[in-house]
Amino acid sequence: MNAIIISVGTELTSGQTLDTNSAYLARQLAAHGIATTEHITVGDDRAAIADAIGLAATLAELVIVTGGLGPTEDDLTRAAMADALGCSFVEDSACMAEIEEFFRRINRPMNAINRTQAFVPTAGQAITNKVGTAPGLYARLGKAEIFVTPGVPSEMEWMFRNAIEPRLARQDGMILHRIVHTFGAGESDVGAKIADLMKRGANPLVGTTVAAGMVSVRIIASAETPEQARKLGDEMVAQVRGRLGAIVIGEGDVTMATAVGELLRSRRQTVATAESCTGGLIGKMLTDIAGSSDYYLGGVVSYSNRIKTQLLDVPEDLLIQHGAVSEPVAGAMAEGCRRRLGSDWAISVTGVAGPGGGTDSKPVGTVCVGLAGADGTETYKSVLPGTREIVRLRSALASMNYLRLRLQNSQFPKSNV
Amino acid sequence: MNAIIISVGTELTSGQTLDTNSAYLARQLAAHGIATTEHITVGDDRAAIADAIGLAATLAELVIVTGGLGPTEDDLTRAAMADALGCSFVEDSACMAEIEEFFRRINRPMNAINRTQAFVPTAGQAITNKVGTAPGLYARLGKAEIFVTPGVPSEMEWMFRNAIEPRLARQDGMILHRIVHTFGAGESDVGAKIADLMKRGANPLVGTTVAAGMVSVRIIASAETPEQARKLGDEMVAQVRGRLGAIVIGEGDVTMATAVGELLRSRRQTVATAESCTGGLIGKMLTDIAGSSDYYLGGVVSYSNRIKTQLLDVPEDLLIQHGAVSEPVAGAMAEGCRRRLGSDWAISVTGVAGPGGGTDSKPVGTVCVGLAGADGTETYKSVLPGTREIVRLRSALASMNYLRLRLQNSQFPKSNV
Repeated sequence: MNAIIISVGTELTSGQTLDTNSAYLARQLAAHGIATTEHITVGDDRAAIADAIGLAATLAELVIVTGGLGPTEDDLTRAAMADALGCSFVEDSACMAEIEEFFRRINRPMNAINRTQAFVPTAGQAITNKVGTAPGLYARLGKAEIFVTPGVPSEMEWMFRNAIEPRLARQDGMILHRIVHTFGAGESDVGAKIADLMKRGANPLVGTTVAAGMVSVRIIASAETPEQARKLGDEMVAQVRGRLGAIVIGEGDVTMATAVGELLRSRRQTVATAESCTGGLIGKMLTDIAGSSDYYLGGVVSYSNRIKTQLLDVPEDLLIQHGAVSEPVAGAMAEGCRRRLGSDWAISVTGVAGPGGGTDSKPVGTVCVGLAGADGTETYKSVLPGTREIVRLRSALASMNYLRLRLQNSQFPKSNV
Repeated sequence: MNAIIISVGTELTSGQTLDTNSAYLARQLAAHGIATTEHITVGDDRAAIADAIGLAATLAELVIVTGGLGPTEDDLTRAAMADALGCSFVEDSACMAEIEEFFRRINRPMNAINRTQAFVPTAGQAITNKVGTAPGLYARLGKAEIFVTPGVPSEMEWMFRNAIEPRLARQDGMILHRIVHTFGAGESDVGAKIADLMKRGANPLVGTTVAAGMVSVRIIASAETPEQARKLGDEMVAQVRGRLGAIVIGEGDVTMATAVGELLRSRRQTVATAESCTGGLIGKMLTDIAGSSDYYLGGVVSYSNRIKTQLLDVPEDLLIQHGAVSEPVAGAMAEGCRRRLGSDWAISVTGVAGPGGGTDSKPVGTVCVGLAGADGTETYKSVLPGTREIVRLRSALASMNYLRLRLQNSQFPKSNV
């Protein structure tokens, strides 16, 4: 069984409001074994809404429409639903009674325009809404079942839970999503290592995505029962982890910062940060995690050279001889930071984030990363592609990854950040 | 002229990833007078992508497709585009040379599967991508112009700015979007001050939105000519600014960090940061801006008390007497930071970001902000609602706003952060 989700509203098509309903519904449907194959977003346009409903009913067995059920002139989904069904729409007295009851309950007078919300296509029926004034709609069109809910996320979710979910034909199958995050290899490198697992139409279905500076492997397992789906997912995750090795950061909600944090916590060790081009981003990412004070002591943002010498004891002649963006300076920043802040480890970044400031020998994207620990200091240099934002994000991730690999005694792949 | 935006990716249809590209593109197109009438999201399915492109080309004069241009087997947009155009797709030698050049520039070996990214439909042409490996595509189909960009938001935005925007036909009719950002008052307070300007159906249309910790006023002006739309927009912006006063940070792309930065730059002054609960976020936000080294020297992330005394000279007895989250400590952090780093100004934050760590006298959300300058040091305390992320974001914004108001000699509304 597959589904199509239709969102209605000019605030969505114009980009003023982000559509979060479709993603919510798709995740809920997946848990019932129903794959969402398409989302369609149309503006407050009666013909466009009716066309979308008509098209979706030919492509999917389940269609969920959200939005356009309000009481104002730009709420046109009731009329469009009647058009798609080829019927008229009339005031439903039971529906009207419910709306009146809703206003009595919240102790506010009902506005005359709320009457329009009681109109229901003659070929369909109303769905009760206990958390708002807009009843939903249900109808069959060809082989498709169509549900219409309000666009307000809380009302949509209530109606999904209370009216749609109980009526969904119980699916025999089950779809399970897993996601494995990696850092340190490009999408094509990751893809090359698992190319044979990424066959189209395979089960589990394996794909790669890039988000927030990391490459992730998505695994979608379909099976008759949740247990079978879990087994398929577990086996594929184990295979993917085996192929990708140390570049795997973790699964699901794991981020670089949580991965590093857990390694430090389990060893009862601490880290401090010395940041130049990232300007505080590494500290921000580490402290996104509640409880990070267990292992993160703090840091120095040495955005100017003077701060590098004054607060991190970077020798002035190093800065003069090699420049601020250099491996010797990255190393001295990490060492000075570790000594001054008294941490077990210190990580540092200095680089040219751009868009200005690049030279022939140090183009935009040049970053030097340092790692200081009890056994000494290491550094490496890399040239990262992308915008200022991406260079900063990836160099912050690279510095944390340096520590992560050291903490788990993995060999550091210097060439790949 | 109208547009349809197509997003490609099973991570989108399944709800694993939220589609932000479509909203971004729709807002950009609106600024050119182009109305986006529909968004379509399809999974990694060659036939579904081709069908969506074919359908969109019959309904709109401009079609923008994002996603599915990566190097792996589930990236099918190139092939689907060829199907929609009814042509084959072949390796483009210029395109291949650019991809090779990209890998040379970042000093990494090219993987064999990246070759697939140089394939271009014979009826279309490639669009250069300077910030990633995936070239875009351009073609005409019937009356429609079709642009295809990568799905990675930074690459999509780069390609929109550099390849699509310059080629957009100049529009006759004009819809102009303006947005005025505020900080220091809630959405309902802002709404109450401009309630009479927010009538439905009015032109310009005025509304409020909350995003990234700030309340913004959106203004949509429609007119026959760009000049008329601009005049309508200018007049409404002036009215809104008049009503809202010093809480207005700026317009459009202006952020708290750019607003503070421009004030400092115009006075040739510098700032440094002393951060506890924000962990580096203020420094990160200030250095998001290219050229911020002109006025931002750096800072200290004093996540532990020891760093507060060692690097910021916060007296130990202050910490014992008042606790780390207190106005005296916030003041001492700012003073110590200004003295140690030698800046004209220093701003500080110490607080309980949560979810743990709250007490009866200092509940989660308690933040103390400090501002030190040549004329002395000021502090204030506030209790912010919201999640850890929101408390951190709003306290970072509050500390920058403190400096912003001082720099423009506005009275500081201590009660409203």
